[in-house]
Amino acid sequence: MLHNYLKNISIVLASQSPRRIELLKMLDIKFLQKKSVADETIHAEDHQNPRQYVCRIASEKCKNIADEMDRDCLIIAADTIVYHEQQILGKPINETAALDYLSLLSGKTHAVYTAICIRYKAMQYSVVERTSVTFKKLTEQEIRDYIATGEPMDKAGAYGIQGYGSQFVKKINGCYFNVMGFPIHKFYQLIEKIFKG
Amino acid sequence: MLHNYLKNISIVLASQSPRRIELLKMLDIKFLQKKSVADETIHAEDHQNPRQYVCRIASEKCKNIADEMDRDCLIIAADTIVYHEQQILGKPINETAALDYLSLLSGKTHAVYTAICIRYKAMQYSVVERTSVTFKKLTEQEIRDYIATGEPMDKAGAYGIQGYGSQFVKKINGCYFNVMGFPIHKFYQLIEKIFKG
Repeated sequence: MLHNYLKNISIVLASQSPRRIELLKMLDIKFLQKKSVADETIHAEDHQNPRQYVCRIASEKCKNIADEMDRDCLIIAADTIVYHEQQILGKPINETAALDYLSLLSGKTHAVYTAICIRYKAMQYSVVERTSVTFKKLTEQEIRDYIATGEPMDKAGAYGIQGYGSQFVKKINGCYFNVMGFPIHKFYQLIEKIFKG
Repeated sequence: MLHNYLKNISIVLASQSPRRIELLKMLDIKFLQKKSVADETIHAEDHQNPRQYVCRIASEKCKNIADEMDRDCLIIAADTIVYHEQQILGKPINETAALDYLSLLSGKTHAVYTAICIRYKAMQYSVVERTSVTFKKLTEQEIRDYIATGEPMDKAGAYGIQGYGSQFVKKINGCYFNVMGFPIHKFYQLIEKIFKG
């Protein structure tokens, strides 16, 4: 299990996401936390290839702090996007964008992609997970009430599945923790590959 | 949304499950908590009808405290089981049972059922949700390491999806919160039905 593989490793999480921090703590993993900023600009061609886009951002976040760190540190970076009808939805820039995003997702099934990028002993490893999420049909009142909670503003696709947003999710198909921003089973597989070879 | 429907209602949660308490708090629902014990004996015929079984237990938990409560209280009770190969798996009675349950679930897809039962103004309402959960193939070492964490012992099917157990879950199909013990979207639908009619 993860806490056994990682107990003697210096770990740096290149993320300030409260969800990722909470999940690593839940797994009893000790880590340092470092802010790492990537250029998250979405170019026209990125909308054709969401996997490539999240991988690029996660890899950039990883690289950006790798130089300052000891090579024996294990650096973890991640990026999460919502993808719907050939369009990448990042964090909404304002409440109008949040309203637009939630109207797009209402009554439909969209995809959530998270890439995890790990740097360890000068090697880099990446993995991407995809989960389908089906929303109930939302009324405009529900969308406005939801925006009023403040929850949508710092989240890809303008919702959090682990908060008030949970009420709107009819079903998911795939890994739940991927939708929260950190696909735990995929991470476990990758750590096993790195340490068991 | 739930916190709007429920803000002026006296709510009693007939459960001591830390997961259910956490989820209701996450949804900003104020409630009193009451222990309610039902006879959870699983009879031979229950294995043929898991929906009926969880409904019966949730309904009993609800009924057991309804008499002491004001009729304007909204009482919420729930029960969760794991169901695999025509067998209901409740909480393991000891570590050997936990090992047996986890060996059964290893590498397979099982079902999780939760029933919610609500009593409000002398009316009773019930709803059942079903989610499929697919486990990775577990080694005996993983099972033993997992049991050593203590997590399996108080949980239906001997695992918690919101803890160390998250590492073993390749995917789910349905509502995640149902696997945690409280299907939020179904609860929201039911509350809407009760208050909007």
